[in-house]
Amino acid sequence: MSLSAFFAPEAIAVIGASTDPEKLGYAVLDNLVNGGYLADGRRLYPINPKAGKILGLRAYASVVDVPDPIDMAVIVIPYRLVPDALRTCGEKRIPAAIVISAGFREAGMEGLEREQELIEIGKTYGIRLIGPNCLGVIDTITPMNASFSAGMPPSGPMAFMSQSGALGTAILDWAQAGRLGLSRFVSLGNKADVSEIDLLRYWQDDPVSRVILMYVEGLPDGQEFIRVAREVSKKKPVVAVKSGITQAGSRAVSSHTGSLAGSEQAYQAAFRQAGVVRADSMEDLFDYARAFGYLKPLGGDRIAIVTNAGGPGILATDAIERAGLSMARFNPERILTLKQGLPDAASAANPVDVLGDARADRFRFALEQVVTDDHVDAVLVILTPQAMTQIEETAQVVIEISSQVNIPVLACFMGEARVEAGARILRAHDLPNFSFPEQAGLVLKAMSQYRQSLSEPLPEFETFEVDRSAVRRTFDRALGEGRVTIGDAEARAILTAYGLGIPASELAENPDRAVEMAAAMGYPVVLKIASPDILHKTDVGGVKVGLENGDDVRDAFDLITYRAGRYVPEARLWGCLVQKMVPPGLEILIGMNRDPQFGPLVTFGLGGIYVETLKDVAFRLAPFSRGEAEIMLSEIRTHALLDGVRGKPAVDKGVLVDTLLRIGQLVQDFPEIAELDINPFVVYEAGQGGIAIDMRLVLTKSEIRATDGTDPIPTGSVA
Amino acid sequence: MSLSAFFAPEAIAVIGASTDPEKLGYAVLDNLVNGGYLADGRRLYPINPKAGKILGLRAYASVVDVPDPIDMAVIVIPYRLVPDALRTCGEKRIPAAIVISAGFREAGMEGLEREQELIEIGKTYGIRLIGPNCLGVIDTITPMNASFSAGMPPSGPMAFMSQSGALGTAILDWAQAGRLGLSRFVSLGNKADVSEIDLLRYWQDDPVSRVILMYVEGLPDGQEFIRVAREVSKKKPVVAVKSGITQAGSRAVSSHTGSLAGSEQAYQAAFRQAGVVRADSMEDLFDYARAFGYLKPLGGDRIAIVTNAGGPGILATDAIERAGLSMARFNPERILTLKQGLPDAASAANPVDVLGDARADRFRFALEQVVTDDHVDAVLVILTPQAMTQIEETAQVVIEISSQVNIPVLACFMGEARVEAGARILRAHDLPNFSFPEQAGLVLKAMSQYRQSLSEPLPEFETFEVDRSAVRRTFDRALGEGRVTIGDAEARAILTAYGLGIPASELAENPDRAVEMAAAMGYPVVLKIASPDILHKTDVGGVKVGLENGDDVRDAFDLITYRAGRYVPEARLWGCLVQKMVPPGLEILIGMNRDPQFGPLVTFGLGGIYVETLKDVAFRLAPFSRGEAEIMLSEIRTHALLDGVRGKPAVDKGVLVDTLLRIGQLVQDFPEIAELDINPFVVYEAGQGGIAIDMRLVLTKSEIRATDGTDPIPTGSVA
Repeated sequence: MSLSAFFAPEAIAVIGASTDPEKLGYAVLDNLVNGGYLADGRRLYPINPKAGKILGLRAYASVVDVPDPIDMAVIVIPYRLVPDALRTCGEKRIPAAIVISAGFREAGMEGLEREQELIEIGKTYGIRLIGPNCLGVIDTITPMNASFSAGMPPSGPMAFMSQSGALGTAILDWAQAGRLGLSRFVSLGNKADVSEIDLLRYWQDDPVSRVILMYVEGLPDGQEFIRVAREVSKKKPVVAVKSGITQAGSRAVSSHTGSLAGSEQAYQAAFRQAGVVRADSMEDLFDYARAFGYLKPLGGDRIAIVTNAGGPGILATDAIERAGLSMARFNPERILTLKQGLPDAASAANPVDVLGDARADRFRFALEQVVTDDHVDAVLVILTPQAMTQIEETAQVVIEISSQVNIPVLACFMGEARVEAGARILRAHDLPNFSFPEQAGLVLKAMSQYRQSLSEPLPEFETFEVDRSAVRRTFDRALGEGRVTIGDAEARAILTAYGLGIPASELAENPDRAVEMAAAMGYPVVLKIASPDILHKTDVGGVKVGLENGDDVRDAFDLITYRAGRYVPEARLWGCLVQKMVPPGLEILIGMNRDPQFGPLVTFGLGGIYVETLKDVAFRLAPFSRGEAEIMLSEIRTHALLDGVRGKPAVDKGVLVDTLLRIGQLVQDFPEIAELDINPFVVYEAGQGGIAIDMRLVLTKSEIRATDGTDPIPTGSVA
Repeated sequence: MSLSAFFAPEAIAVIGASTDPEKLGYAVLDNLVNGGYLADGRRLYPINPKAGKILGLRAYASVVDVPDPIDMAVIVIPYRLVPDALRTCGEKRIPAAIVISAGFREAGMEGLEREQELIEIGKTYGIRLIGPNCLGVIDTITPMNASFSAGMPPSGPMAFMSQSGALGTAILDWAQAGRLGLSRFVSLGNKADVSEIDLLRYWQDDPVSRVILMYVEGLPDGQEFIRVAREVSKKKPVVAVKSGITQAGSRAVSSHTGSLAGSEQAYQAAFRQAGVVRADSMEDLFDYARAFGYLKPLGGDRIAIVTNAGGPGILATDAIERAGLSMARFNPERILTLKQGLPDAASAANPVDVLGDARADRFRFALEQVVTDDHVDAVLVILTPQAMTQIEETAQVVIEISSQVNIPVLACFMGEARVEAGARILRAHDLPNFSFPEQAGLVLKAMSQYRQSLSEPLPEFETFEVDRSAVRRTFDRALGEGRVTIGDAEARAILTAYGLGIPASELAENPDRAVEMAAAMGYPVVLKIASPDILHKTDVGGVKVGLENGDDVRDAFDLITYRAGRYVPEARLWGCLVQKMVPPGLEILIGMNRDPQFGPLVTFGLGGIYVETLKDVAFRLAPFSRGEAEIMLSEIRTHALLDGVRGKPAVDKGVLVDTLLRIGQLVQDFPEIAELDINPFVVYEAGQGGIAIDMRLVLTKSEIRATDGTDPIPTGSVA
């Protein structure tokens, strides 16, 4: 059901409206009345069993007493009374309710039960809910202030949703000081019903919202979020601040809203895959909001600077290069024209230094030249308040030129006391001022990132021909035996079923069989202990490599079996796996952890110390496209090793991409896989493919309980 | 000579004082008069050949006409007239002059000559100079505004020096809006005489300046800067923004002020070694300035948060952890007391959530508990403007509690419209407000970094017994032969002279001698081409390893010699070096580049792809102490490899530290070494030492010209 009733209701009931100015029920009604809701024939009904009139409006004892239809209820009563009030709303056929009252999920088990009750009532009567435990909803377009905020924020192109109501009060306070211009503002509270996903869907076609801003602590359905945000972000920028990214931060999330915090890596991948621009701080969020809300879109990465101050010009150049953008190189004729029109001491190359004594007309001349150069994708105008500087006139010049061109013109008027007059003029014409060159650099980086994400097509997901039933059988057998770990021989079957190359290998029950097999496949060989109960074979001395003859194999078989039995006495030993030694290549790790919020998080990195010491890995949430898998390869810091260094040839990237996609399919096909690790996957030079040498795989314990309830053997973490 | 005349002059002459309000000469005089300089019997003399009276003050045609002594002159006349005016100052025995006029070094060769003339006049007469091409000097304590800035900034504990005058105008504009409180402000201009180093020296004992702030584009004498800043930063924090860090940024520096930009790595090392806190942006500089200027010093890294909003509490927790600090864990009794005194829904653990309806008294209770907990080193108070929030009263509480304790109390009142009233009260009591939790995190990180640097003793530099004359002889021979490159055999002599281990090795002129030597030292051996003209031996196929017998050696000798001759026909071939194969160990790179601004920049990293692909290296400027060398080892991202991974033992860190110190000594002893590279240095497990396998060394070309003027053979970069 659409959320339109929340944003353009013709009639609102405030359940708990109060005559006491100290009460939230008064504040909400007051905000609606003084926020201008009662124009154009819109109606407002205070609901209060005692009061006859509140703020000049006739109060009713119950919504059912109201003679006309009601589109939305705002509920501001003690939590105990909320369920009944909501039921009454249902009887009155009110399609939307904002529950401001607290005392639900955030207040422990009892509260959680109360919240469940609200959800059920909502479902029964078809009522959409915002909250509970929220600040309310503001719509500056209608206008409607259905919140207990202190006054109405200024109108503008930004739609804002915040999981935290308290942070919402600060955001609205900043907005009222002129930092933000809002179209819609929603405090989501506990998200019993309406979530970030619903709002994204609803706001994507909202013509007055040019950018969607989010403060996120946790998300309800990670995969659905990605699906929806991916489409919405093709229509307008979505910018998010995510809190709770560090370990201690995550603890605070759990204790605060009870929402499950996804891991930082999963969020990083999710935002990346969904095309969401991530802001690292509230301040960055505001800067990005102003940029996306007010500036022309960025069409390329070549930035020009016009400045009346050398030092800040250098700071800005630094910031632009640090942001991964480039300094525009002007046409030679352009430089000549600039040279002719500027004083001798000025710099006509980028950054264009118009000198400290530049008045507005010199800024205008330089800007006109720069914005029409076809090597320039954006212009940053830096002004410092020097003796001759015409601050307000220069602001007018910037406004005028910005309105004439199709590239973003960013103002950086540095200072505050004298410069504020100029910044105010810019603001009045919807041009943001970024006080520091470094801010402008970050903003351009975010714009460039969004541009990049817009240019990527919506992903298409490939499906490979695989043998699902073989894997199904393997898992069923393991679970049937009360195991959540998968043995080496089983892992080989799974890899083969999903089309991955594995080394020639056979299971030998005794030393003589092992020698026979080794002779048949040709020396040198590797022996590995075969046991479903030993995940980390190397750690227990369960692997011997480089065996050159029958004696070596015999010795290794006995030694490995002896050691395995000594280290893990309870382990079932199936014998030893005899494996042909594969030729050396580049060792890769491909793995997966199932994130509680987003599902299968696939990992790619170089094996060995690169993963262990450098933690140099890239992540994507499955499903991902071939293009995304290719980008993944380039994201690790050591990606140069894939292209070959020190005279080595480039590796077979195609087989790596295929393997990532096939593993992505496997972990989607089988949600019972909790984690897996192919380490190492040995990749050879281009065209020569690669081989999965070893895989560790763990199923979820819940699956095993579903099968026979046995407590599984505990396993170490594979991550 | 002391700079005191610049800051507390009893009498000032303004040379070029004007009656025309459009002229800088008027602005300067006006600033002095209206800035309050003329109190306490201080005197001011406008110098202007035409005017009888300016701003009510009697004007003189020349400083020599002034009957009384003059302590300082401010020169604001066309550049052509400046040298003569300065001479007249000399005749009048004025000890200090600020030259505001532009048209000197920044204006090309002719200007540079004029600046040289100023410097000589200054030396001749013993006049200290600030400028030319600057904004002037401000001292809010005297008070004295000897600049053409727009008005006087508010007084405070921050001493600010800026290489850019234009940026200075912005800084002063921010100060006037209340962002900074300044004690002294100096616009350094071209730094013909007075530089950052002089001001650091002078301000270190300035009782009114609690923190020194710098905007730096380039520094005149890097080594002296480090020596002075190292001592000054033990007395008070020094915070610097350095511009021109990226490549394009550096280009802008060169074209802007003509100052030579040191490399980013050299500045990074210099600031680190000098104890200077580096700010990454102007905004960070301001935040650090307010923290160091107004807050109590930080005594540890355990941070407590008291907040009326959960979301911002999480953001702050994230910021604190990201900054490398830790969340304080309170005493159990403290948590109990907090629980008893706060509502049920509040959180008594860190972050302490006093809930959205907290009034000032609840903030007071929580803060009183937290600041007295001995597990807390700093407190961050977060306030969002909710319905019941008492913004101004809570500000008063923060001020009161902050004044009673010895730990820093940081305010983060979020918002702007309503919250400003609280921020204003805080500011009036010298307590900064940081609008965003992320800012507070960065500030705490900077405070922690300064605390760490304070705790380190002033470095003591070791000197090893070495054979300088052996190295001297080697260099003289090379230079005498017109070479700037050092051959392998010569490199061995240098390494030995400085006490570094090298593999057994001899120079064989022909294959037979090579086989004899190999047999004597024992197989396997390595053969390397011996030529002073081939620096990158591997690139020309000039190295063969793992030679097992006489035939191998003979084949290798011929092959290497043939290839070397083919690739570098002009190279002098001395034969082949026969080297005993050293046992495998961890490969290290130790190198040095001579930075034009700071001198010898020593590099440490793991060899091979770690350096080449990951660029994972640490830097220090020689001289550095043993302690600094030890920290260097821990700074590389792959430092875990030094401690042993995958069952390998830790390496001999002692020999690495010694080698770094010895190389530091070598490059100081011989300034003619332009660059050197020991790659690889093979290090063994703890106690087993290490061996320098190969060294490349290049002398400066100027040395060779000094010897015989021959043009040296061009060499590739070693970096």
